[in-house]
Amino acid sequence: MPPDDNSKELEVGELYSVLKRRGYFWPSFEIYGGVAGFVDLGPLGSLIRENIEGIWKDKFLLEEGFHLVDCPSINPEVVFAASGHLEKFSDLLVRCSSCLLPFRADHLLEDLIENPDALGKDELAAALKENDIRCPECSSELGGPEEFNLMFSTFIGPGKEKLAYLRPETAQSIFMDFNSLYRYNRDRMPFGVAQIGKGFRNEISPRQGMLRLREFHMAEGEFFFDPDDPSFKGAGRYLDLEVGLLASSDPGSTIHTTLGKATDEGIIGSRLLAHFLGVTHSFATSIGIPAGGMRFRQHLPSEMAHYARDCWDLEVITSNGWVEMVGVADRSAYDLNQHAKASGVDLRARRKFDEPIVREISRLQPKMKEMGPIFRGDAKALGEALESLDPKNLKDHISSREPITVTLRGKEVEIPSNCYELVEGQERIHVEPFTPNVIEPSFGIDRLMVSVLEHAYRESDTSPKGGESEDGTYRVLRLDPRVAPVKAGVFPLLNKDDLPELASPLNDRLRRRGLNTYYDVSGSIGRRYARMDEIGTPFCITIDHQSVEDGSATVRERDSGEQVRVPIEGMVDLIEDLCRGRVSFENL
Amino acid sequence: MPPDDNSKELEVGELYSVLKRRGYFWPSFEIYGGVAGFVDLGPLGSLIRENIEGIWKDKFLLEEGFHLVDCPSINPEVVFAASGHLEKFSDLLVRCSSCLLPFRADHLLEDLIENPDALGKDELAAALKENDIRCPECSSELGGPEEFNLMFSTFIGPGKEKLAYLRPETAQSIFMDFNSLYRYNRDRMPFGVAQIGKGFRNEISPRQGMLRLREFHMAEGEFFFDPDDPSFKGAGRYLDLEVGLLASSDPGSTIHTTLGKATDEGIIGSRLLAHFLGVTHSFATSIGIPAGGMRFRQHLPSEMAHYARDCWDLEVITSNGWVEMVGVADRSAYDLNQHAKASGVDLRARRKFDEPIVREISRLQPKMKEMGPIFRGDAKALGEALESLDPKNLKDHISSREPITVTLRGKEVEIPSNCYELVEGQERIHVEPFTPNVIEPSFGIDRLMVSVLEHAYRESDTSPKGGESEDGTYRVLRLDPRVAPVKAGVFPLLNKDDLPELASPLNDRLRRRGLNTYYDVSGSIGRRYARMDEIGTPFCITIDHQSVEDGSATVRERDSGEQVRVPIEGMVDLIEDLCRGRVSFENL
Repeated sequence: MPPDDNSKELEVGELYSVLKRRGYFWPSFEIYGGVAGFVDLGPLGSLIRENIEGIWKDKFLLEEGFHLVDCPSINPEVVFAASGHLEKFSDLLVRCSSCLLPFRADHLLEDLIENPDALGKDELAAALKENDIRCPECSSELGGPEEFNLMFSTFIGPGKEKLAYLRPETAQSIFMDFNSLYRYNRDRMPFGVAQIGKGFRNEISPRQGMLRLREFHMAEGEFFFDPDDPSFKGAGRYLDLEVGLLASSDPGSTIHTTLGKATDEGIIGSRLLAHFLGVTHSFATSIGIPAGGMRFRQHLPSEMAHYARDCWDLEVITSNGWVEMVGVADRSAYDLNQHAKASGVDLRARRKFDEPIVREISRLQPKMKEMGPIFRGDAKALGEALESLDPKNLKDHISSREPITVTLRGKEVEIPSNCYELVEGQERIHVEPFTPNVIEPSFGIDRLMVSVLEHAYRESDTSPKGGESEDGTYRVLRLDPRVAPVKAGVFPLLNKDDLPELASPLNDRLRRRGLNTYYDVSGSIGRRYARMDEIGTPFCITIDHQSVEDGSATVRERDSGEQVRVPIEGMVDLIEDLCRGRVSFENL
Repeated sequence: MPPDDNSKELEVGELYSVLKRRGYFWPSFEIYGGVAGFVDLGPLGSLIRENIEGIWKDKFLLEEGFHLVDCPSINPEVVFAASGHLEKFSDLLVRCSSCLLPFRADHLLEDLIENPDALGKDELAAALKENDIRCPECSSELGGPEEFNLMFSTFIGPGKEKLAYLRPETAQSIFMDFNSLYRYNRDRMPFGVAQIGKGFRNEISPRQGMLRLREFHMAEGEFFFDPDDPSFKGAGRYLDLEVGLLASSDPGSTIHTTLGKATDEGIIGSRLLAHFLGVTHSFATSIGIPAGGMRFRQHLPSEMAHYARDCWDLEVITSNGWVEMVGVADRSAYDLNQHAKASGVDLRARRKFDEPIVREISRLQPKMKEMGPIFRGDAKALGEALESLDPKNLKDHISSREPITVTLRGKEVEIPSNCYELVEGQERIHVEPFTPNVIEPSFGIDRLMVSVLEHAYRESDTSPKGGESEDGTYRVLRLDPRVAPVKAGVFPLLNKDDLPELASPLNDRLRRRGLNTYYDVSGSIGRRYARMDEIGTPFCITIDHQSVEDGSATVRERDSGEQVRVPIEGMVDLIEDLCRGRVSFENL
């Protein structure tokens, strides 16, 4: 059962100092005093991140069949003008009138009013005044709130002609590439596209360590479907999964039910949305977030992103309380429509009918004979742009025979009235264009990584079997073997007596199989176990004097401290099978 | 044997249109007319890139033991002021005085003089004048050449106080993190650190498709070692490897010799440099670049990067001639020294002696009793900064008892003369600090990907066994199975007769094993083979009527067109073993 909403925060004790000391992550640019919102992943952090992304890929690419893409972080301005980020992706900022320091306006109202981040500009201004908020640094008066766009800007090429931004999400390139991706999928619907990469948000004053970074890792999926036929493969897979839901209609209470029932009862808007909540839940479980430590919370209308029609966040309980890890948003046809309008390129799929159907149609038919001489090489593209317009929105232009403005590659072009005609009536059609709708599961990988580490962490005053703490506190990261950065410690009991001659080649063989190991010859064996437990290594192999005699070695399991003795010859297969979950340690 | 330097360019025929059509890559922002220097990797390109990076990680992380890190792309200005990129990482630009278009000055002199990119500003100005170069667009006069810094700039946080740049290489964060990484390696030398990620270069006018991108994928390794003891594990591994070398002392002729002999004869400067040429060569071979299509070329002094003491490029023959893919540079102690100086943080390792040795010493000893009251919390760090200075460079200050300026977190601080004393004489020491030297192998992943595809491509008028071309030309990508984005096609011969009921679960089982497949039920079987051959899929599994009877299926190998019939039950293991190279198809 998921915990109640007032469930206690996680006890993470010394975890963060362990993570820094042992090489999971540390602040970036530390030698220059650091810059808030940037973090370096050290050797263990880099690997755990890759392992989490690997499991994500198994889930989304191999199981759900998404296609992967990889596109630039730098995008020209036109992209975010179309997507709405230029206008709407901002936070409200206030500056101190005296020391000029900038603050996020809603942060200054925390603990004073509820959900200050849901307030608009005028409401925030009023609330700041009402509560007599002054500069937290120098107590002077604050200026009024102003919109601050959260995208990092730069210029492409010499000079300042080509303004560009670092992407705040990876999604836009997938929408821009819709036609190529639809073709790749052989003109079939539905299909999903995924991208894993960096996102960038120029936060005004980032706090909360790893939870709010200015440069972060994300993994996003965009699932395109026909709104008239939202059927998809694997539709039944998660119907029986029990989850905790906080619906926007009653944001105070968590409902515990199955995804199937929640959809039937209209709590979740569609089977497809419910499916991706299931995929998300299943992924989070598989990397080590306990089902009892997560819930889905529906966005209130006031907090929805500008592109979303509906959105459910996967929230995980952390030492900072419940924190959003994943957003599963219904973006409708918003983005494809916006890019089609801004670029003049038709970004629609085609619905095919086995039997022709009769439709009332109303469309603008380009007259290519007239357009050719005027527009030359652009005539075909302009004709397509014209055809993709909805005449309903252009009634006045058409009736008064005014030119119609279409956009081609970001530039507006006027099409005179002799170049088109309005075609209306009934048509028997085999194929009908439509703009696909999109469900987007969007994952914050850094946050998930930290949550996994928090949920895996245990500390105790007593050492487990075999382990020997250096300072009286014993620390263990109970990471899933697929998530753990190091799969096995390899230890010759002594650094002599032919033991390294057995241990070192075994270490090499494990690494050739793709298994990351940690070879350690120094200190007592108990200390070596403790070092590995502290970073989450699931198995430790010890080569001792009996190994020289009979070719066996011990394997110790992290969480139980139990050891078994097995032949060195089959060790590589055994460790691989243990890590992949094909064999369980208890059954050895 | 490597080919001669005048070896013919590769014939790549229709390759690039195949790659675009089939989803390897395409220009970014195409719906908005595109922006030069940016490319999207489609579904197949994203996977082949990941596969190439996976093999790189096997090589560098698991075999060579490098530690992986993952750090921000955005870095504050101070980083690149220290690294020298702010001052020196630029190209020379000329602008047309009339149409104002910018051009790379050296590009305008290509085909007119040799190696124009090696010329300095004044030489270029003279050469442009001498050759009467005018604007290629409007033939007007050009302005004089000016330095254009190739880093993209942005600002962190609101306002324009915190200038920052997108990293032009991933290396700098590894140098800044030296102390944490040295501690992670338990204060032992030597060790390597790797980073895989995006690099950004704001090229003036990028051309050459994938070869010169503004945003690109790179994989870099920094190997830190003690210049007094450059021994390392695996030193003998590549001594017998035969390579082609173009030394800067005789840049006109390729020497064919082993890496061991080339080092002994002084052609390659050190065993360590030779080792990483060997690692590079071995990696390039394993992703599918034929040994005969590559050579190492030593940089001329005039083309060396500002941080490099020596550099050898791996060049690969491509349809654009010989192109640099990897640079293996000796960066000496340049970067660590620069960051130590700029930050005031000691970035040195410690050499330990079993027996104490006697050294002439000369150092500044901070007087903490005096410093404490003046500098409070910063006293310790300032004392360390003082100690890391070399008194030889401060003779005048010390003798005249002037304050000494040290840098702390990027800020200059004056230390008055009563806070330090000069200690000179002989000292018996067990431990001695030193600044490690660095060898850096730096890989351009996008270029390598394209080279692999070019070398793998074959086209022919005749179809191989089983294959059936759609348009008369048969196209095959002979990719190594580990590199190929799709490992197996899975085809029910007909989409009925219980064949999909056998094929679809097999497809699922292959994907659960992590093997990417392409399930295809449409078109003739010959066409389906041809589609897979064209994207480089090494194996195709066909389920036919005999499969229903006896549980067998055929496996077809791409390059030979041969087929064998094997039991479906062992198919997943078989395909995995074939892809990993554990089993060869001919022996089935």
